[in-house]
Amino acid sequence: MHIREMLADAERTGNPSFSFEYFPPKTAQGVQNLYDRMDRMYQFGPKFIDITWGAGGNIAELTCEMVVQAQTYLGLETCMHLTCTDMGEDRVNDALQRAYKAGCTNILALRGDPPREKEKWEATEGGFQYARDLVAHIRKLYGNHFDIGVAGYPEGCDDNKDEDLLLDHLKEKVDMGATFIVTQMFYDVDNFLRWVQKVRAKGITIPIVPGIMPIATYGSFLRRANHMNCKIPDGWMERLESVKNDDVAVREIGKTLVADMCRKILAAGIPHLHFYTMNLAQATRMVLDELDWMPSPNRPLKQTLPWKQSLGLGRREEDVRPIFWRNREKSYVKRTQDWDEFPNGRWGDSRSPAFGELDAYGIGLTGTNEQNRKKWGEPKSIAEIANLFIRYLNKGIEYLPWSEAPVASEADLIKDDLIDLNKRGLLTINSQPAVNGVKSTHPIHGWGPPNGYVYQKAYLELLVSPDVFPEIRRRVKDHPDLSYYAVTKSGNLETNTSNEGPNAVTWGVFPGKEIVQPTIVESISFLAWKDEAFQLGVDWARCYEAGSPSRLVIGEMMDNWYLVNIVNNNFHEPRTIFEVLSGLTVQDLNKVPGQANGTTNGFHHPTNGAEASAVPQ
Amino acid sequence: MHIREMLADAERTGNPSFSFEYFPPKTAQGVQNLYDRMDRMYQFGPKFIDITWGAGGNIAELTCEMVVQAQTYLGLETCMHLTCTDMGEDRVNDALQRAYKAGCTNILALRGDPPREKEKWEATEGGFQYARDLVAHIRKLYGNHFDIGVAGYPEGCDDNKDEDLLLDHLKEKVDMGATFIVTQMFYDVDNFLRWVQKVRAKGITIPIVPGIMPIATYGSFLRRANHMNCKIPDGWMERLESVKNDDVAVREIGKTLVADMCRKILAAGIPHLHFYTMNLAQATRMVLDELDWMPSPNRPLKQTLPWKQSLGLGRREEDVRPIFWRNREKSYVKRTQDWDEFPNGRWGDSRSPAFGELDAYGIGLTGTNEQNRKKWGEPKSIAEIANLFIRYLNKGIEYLPWSEAPVASEADLIKDDLIDLNKRGLLTINSQPAVNGVKSTHPIHGWGPPNGYVYQKAYLELLVSPDVFPEIRRRVKDHPDLSYYAVTKSGNLETNTSNEGPNAVTWGVFPGKEIVQPTIVESISFLAWKDEAFQLGVDWARCYEAGSPSRLVIGEMMDNWYLVNIVNNNFHEPRTIFEVLSGLTVQDLNKVPGQANGTTNGFHHPTNGAEASAVPQ
Repeated sequence: MHIREMLADAERTGNPSFSFEYFPPKTAQGVQNLYDRMDRMYQFGPKFIDITWGAGGNIAELTCEMVVQAQTYLGLETCMHLTCTDMGEDRVNDALQRAYKAGCTNILALRGDPPREKEKWEATEGGFQYARDLVAHIRKLYGNHFDIGVAGYPEGCDDNKDEDLLLDHLKEKVDMGATFIVTQMFYDVDNFLRWVQKVRAKGITIPIVPGIMPIATYGSFLRRANHMNCKIPDGWMERLESVKNDDVAVREIGKTLVADMCRKILAAGIPHLHFYTMNLAQATRMVLDELDWMPSPNRPLKQTLPWKQSLGLGRREEDVRPIFWRNREKSYVKRTQDWDEFPNGRWGDSRSPAFGELDAYGIGLTGTNEQNRKKWGEPKSIAEIANLFIRYLNKGIEYLPWSEAPVASEADLIKDDLIDLNKRGLLTINSQPAVNGVKSTHPIHGWGPPNGYVYQKAYLELLVSPDVFPEIRRRVKDHPDLSYYAVTKSGNLETNTSNEGPNAVTWGVFPGKEIVQPTIVESISFLAWKDEAFQLGVDWARCYEAGSPSRLVIGEMMDNWYLVNIVNNNFHEPRTIFEVLSGLTVQDLNKVPGQANGTTNGFHHPTNGAEASAVPQ
Repeated sequence: MHIREMLADAERTGNPSFSFEYFPPKTAQGVQNLYDRMDRMYQFGPKFIDITWGAGGNIAELTCEMVVQAQTYLGLETCMHLTCTDMGEDRVNDALQRAYKAGCTNILALRGDPPREKEKWEATEGGFQYARDLVAHIRKLYGNHFDIGVAGYPEGCDDNKDEDLLLDHLKEKVDMGATFIVTQMFYDVDNFLRWVQKVRAKGITIPIVPGIMPIATYGSFLRRANHMNCKIPDGWMERLESVKNDDVAVREIGKTLVADMCRKILAAGIPHLHFYTMNLAQATRMVLDELDWMPSPNRPLKQTLPWKQSLGLGRREEDVRPIFWRNREKSYVKRTQDWDEFPNGRWGDSRSPAFGELDAYGIGLTGTNEQNRKKWGEPKSIAEIANLFIRYLNKGIEYLPWSEAPVASEADLIKDDLIDLNKRGLLTINSQPAVNGVKSTHPIHGWGPPNGYVYQKAYLELLVSPDVFPEIRRRVKDHPDLSYYAVTKSGNLETNTSNEGPNAVTWGVFPGKEIVQPTIVESISFLAWKDEAFQLGVDWARCYEAGSPSRLVIGEMMDNWYLVNIVNNNFHEPRTIFEVLSGLTVQDLNKVPGQANGTTNGFHHPTNGAEASAVPQ
C-alpha cells in the first residue's frame, strides 16, 4: 500500500496514525534482536515503518535484507530509504529492484550525508547529485509503482541554513514526483507549523509527516538535538536537567513533553506522526501510551485476517493458510515463497501446492545447542517434557521447539483443559478454541472489517504416545462431529475424513462479501507440516549429548509417537474434544531412559503415576 | 450418478429408495403438462427417473428432448430407455450421443416390442437383434460412461414364456456389461422372489429392481395386468371388483394392496422400487404415503444446495448462483448453458460471465395472452397489481410473471411483512428471511449434508415507484448493515457497495469441508437479471390491448420504476429491512390510467388512500 493512501485515510477518517523508523544495526546479534523487537512493535499498530539507508557496502545490503524481512516475514508495510551518497546509477537500480522484489512500494529519496571522510557532499561518479534527480530516476524507471517521499527541513539542513533555498529544493523534489514529505526531527512545534505554512505558500500540497524523536536518556536527547541543530523549547531543559541522572525520571518527563508536542501537531490538523525509534521500543511506547494510542482490549489492533499477512511480492492477495503453522508463521512463508499464487488454488483443487524442502530454507530449530539447553533445561522423562509445555501455557517460558512466539491470548480460554492433557502426557502443540459467531471487533477472537461475525471450529494438535493412540482413534473415528488426521514420522497417515478438500476451521461473515475462510485443515499441508514438526523434535534431541536421558526420551518420542490433529466440526460445542480425551494417561510418564524403573523430579500423575494406562477410567 | 451406485447406497444404508418411469406423451400440451408434473413429483424424492423410448421418428426425438429437460432443467437423474426396434446403428449412436450431451449417464437397453404392424419382432437392417447386442455396443462405444440396465421377466415375456431361456438371455445381457436389472410389472411377490432366487442361481449378482404398477382405476389395472400376463394374487380381484365403479375407492384399496406388496419385497431385502407412474401422480403418491416414504417436515427431501441442481453436462460441479433467478431457475440454466465452467470463476474474478441473450433462448413470459389474462385478470391500478402479489403470497395464485413456481415455504415466515409492503405499493418479487445458523436438516431452511449449520442474510427485491425511491435510497444508503442495488429499465445502476465481488447471502458450515456459499448477490448478474425482469413486465403488459388501462399501468411501471434489491448483512437481525421501509407508501395507488381521479375495485390503503405519499408517517 502506498503511504500517501494511508495518509489520505488518516485525513479522511480523522483517526490519527503513526509510523516507526529503524536503522540497520552493526552486529548480527543486533539484527536478530531488532527483528524480534520490530515484531513486538508490530503490536503497537504502526501504519508503516522506515528502514534507513546504510550508506556503503555491507550496510546497504543489510537495508535491503531488512526490507525483505519486514515486508515478507513481519508483515510490516515498509518504506526503504535510498540516498545518493556513494551510489552510482547501477547500485541505485539494484537497490530499487531488490525493494521491488521484496514487495516494497515506498521509497524515501534522500541526498544523504557526506561520507565520513569528506567534509562536503559530492556526487559519486555516474551517480546522482540531488534527491530530486533520484526522485525523477525512480519515477522514470518504475512509474507509479513506488510512492516516493522526500525530506523536509523545518529547522534547516546540516550544511544549508537558507530556508527559502531549501524550500525551493523541496518544491523541485515535489515537481519531480514526490508524494509525501517526512521532516527531520524537531521539538519546536510553533516553528514547525510556521514552516508548514511556508511550504503550503510555495504551492506544495502533498502531505507533511512530522518526525518525532522520543526522549530516551538525557544524554542522547542533548546529543541528537545538538547534532540536528534542533531548537529546544523554553522550559524543557530546566525540567530535564533537574533529573538528568535518573533515566526513568527523564523518560517520564520526556514522554509528557513529547506527547504534548504531538497533541499540538494533531490539533493543527496533521494526523500522522513518524517516530524515530532509534531501534528502541520503550520511549516510543511511553509516548503512545500517554497519547492513549496503544491497542487495548477496547481498541484492538485491526487485523485483516486471523494470521499476520505477508506483504512480500505477490502475497498481498493471500487469504488462506493451513492451521499447522499457526505458531511458526515465518517458517510457513519461507516454505511457500516459491509459489506462483496465493491462495494456491484455494487449497481445494488438483494443483496441490508443493512446500519448500526443510533443508533448502534452513527450517528447523534456531539457537545454539547451549542456548536451547538453557531455554528448556534437560527434561529426562515425558513428565518433565510435559512440564515444559505447561510452563509455556502458563507463560513461564516464551517458546517451545514448535512455537516461535508466546502462547496466544485465546489459548487462555482453554488453558486448564490443555494443562490437564499435558499432565497426562498428551502434549499439545497447537490449538484454538471454538467460537460460535462473535463480532469481528471482538478483542480476542476478532479480525477483518467491522460489522462482521467470526467463527472457529475447535482445533487441537498433539503428540501422542503409541500406547494411548489406539484408544484415541477408537473414540474419535466414528464420532459424528470430529475429524482427525494422525501420522508418524515415517509417514503413515490415517484419517476419518472422506474428502480430499480442505476443512475450513476459521471463517468470517462480513457485509457485502463472500465468506472469508482464512484457516484450513487438509492432508497435503499436514504431511508437509509433519516433516517440520518431527524435524524440530529431532533437532531438539540433538541439543543433548548422545546417550543422555534427554536425547533418548525426546528421540524416542520423535521415532514412535503420533502427530495427531482433531477438529470439532460442531462449533456450537466448545468442549467435545477434551471430553473425548478424558481419562487417558500415557504410560511410563516418569520413566527415565536407561534407568530400570526410574523416577525423576517431574510430577507424578495424581491418580495413576507410572502405572497409568490407556484404559478409560 | 450411476444407478448402480444409488442402489448400492440403498443397500448399504438400509434406507429404501424408489424411482419413477414416464413415457413421451402424444401432444405438445401433454408434454408441457408432464414437465410440470415431473417437476412436482421431484418433491416426492425419487432417486432417478426413466424415460421410455418412443420407437419411431418424432417420438424418439421426444424421448431425447425429455432426457435433456429432466437432466438439465428439472435436475432429475435420468435413465434413458433405448430399444432395438426400428433402429439402425446410426440412429442408436445418435440417441446415445444426445443422451451423453444431456449429462445422462444411465441407459436401459431393451429389445423392444415389435412395431405395431408386425406380429413378430425382427431386426432393422444394420440394426441390433437382441438387447445383449445393444449392451455390448454401448460398452464398446462409451466404456463406463453409461450405467446400463436390462429388463427382467419374472412372469415371462410377451412372445416367450420359457423362463429358463429368458434367464439365459438375461445372463448374456449381464455378461455383455449390464449392471442392473429392472423387471416388468408384476403383482405376485411370491413368484417374483422365487424368480429372483433362480436369477441368483444363474450366477447373476447385479441388483434387481422390481417394477411396481400402482392401481389408478379398475379398468386400467385389468387392462395392464392382462396385457403383461400378470398373475393377480388371490383375493385382489374380489376386493377391487366390489368397488370397480368408484375410482376413489379403487385407489384406496389399490394403494393398500400395492403398499403391502412393496413391504413384502423390502422385507426380502430388496431396497429399491421402480414405479410405473403412467405419467400420473396420484396413485403413486398414495402408495408412497401409505409406505410413509413421502418427504415430510420430519423427514425433509435432501437437498445438496438450497437451489435445485442442474444435472446437465458439465453442471454437476456448479455450486454458486445469483439469488435473482431464485423463482426462475430454468431461465437461469438456459441463460448460462453456454458457459464453460460452473462456477464461472466463483463469480469473484475478472472472467465475468456473459449471460445468454433473452431472445436467443426464448426467455420471457410463457403462455398465450389469453391464458395470462385468465391467470392474472386485468389489473387497472398499482393497488390491483399489488393485490395479485398478495394473492400469490397467500397461495391464492400459483404464479406471477416473475415467479414460475408457487411461493416458497420459507416466505411464510415473513409473509405479513411482505403483504404489508405490497399493500403500500412496494411490490416484492423475491425475498428470503434471515437465518442465523439452524441445523442443515431443518425442515424449512435446511440443505446440504447432515451435522451442518446453514445461514442466510435477509434479502428483498422490489419494484419501486420513482416517487418513493429517493426516500428509500436516503434511508438505506448509509445504513451500516444494508447493501442495495437499484436499476431502471434503461440501465442506470446505483449501489452503496464499494467492492465488485459477490456478497454471499446463503452459506453452510459442514463437517470437514470449506464453507459452502451457494447463493450470492453481485452487480454483473443483477444487470442481466434486470433485462429479464423488465422484459417479463413488458411481455405481461402486451397481454392486454393497446391503450387499455392494464397495458398502460403495467407499461408505465416498467418504463419508470426501479428494480431494487436490499441485503441485510447483519443476519442476526431479521426485521431491519422491513423497519427501514416502514411508513412508505406509493402515491396514486388507486389511479387508473386514462381516468382523471379514478378509483377501482382494488383496496384503498387504510390510512392514506390515493393521497398517500412517500413522506414518512
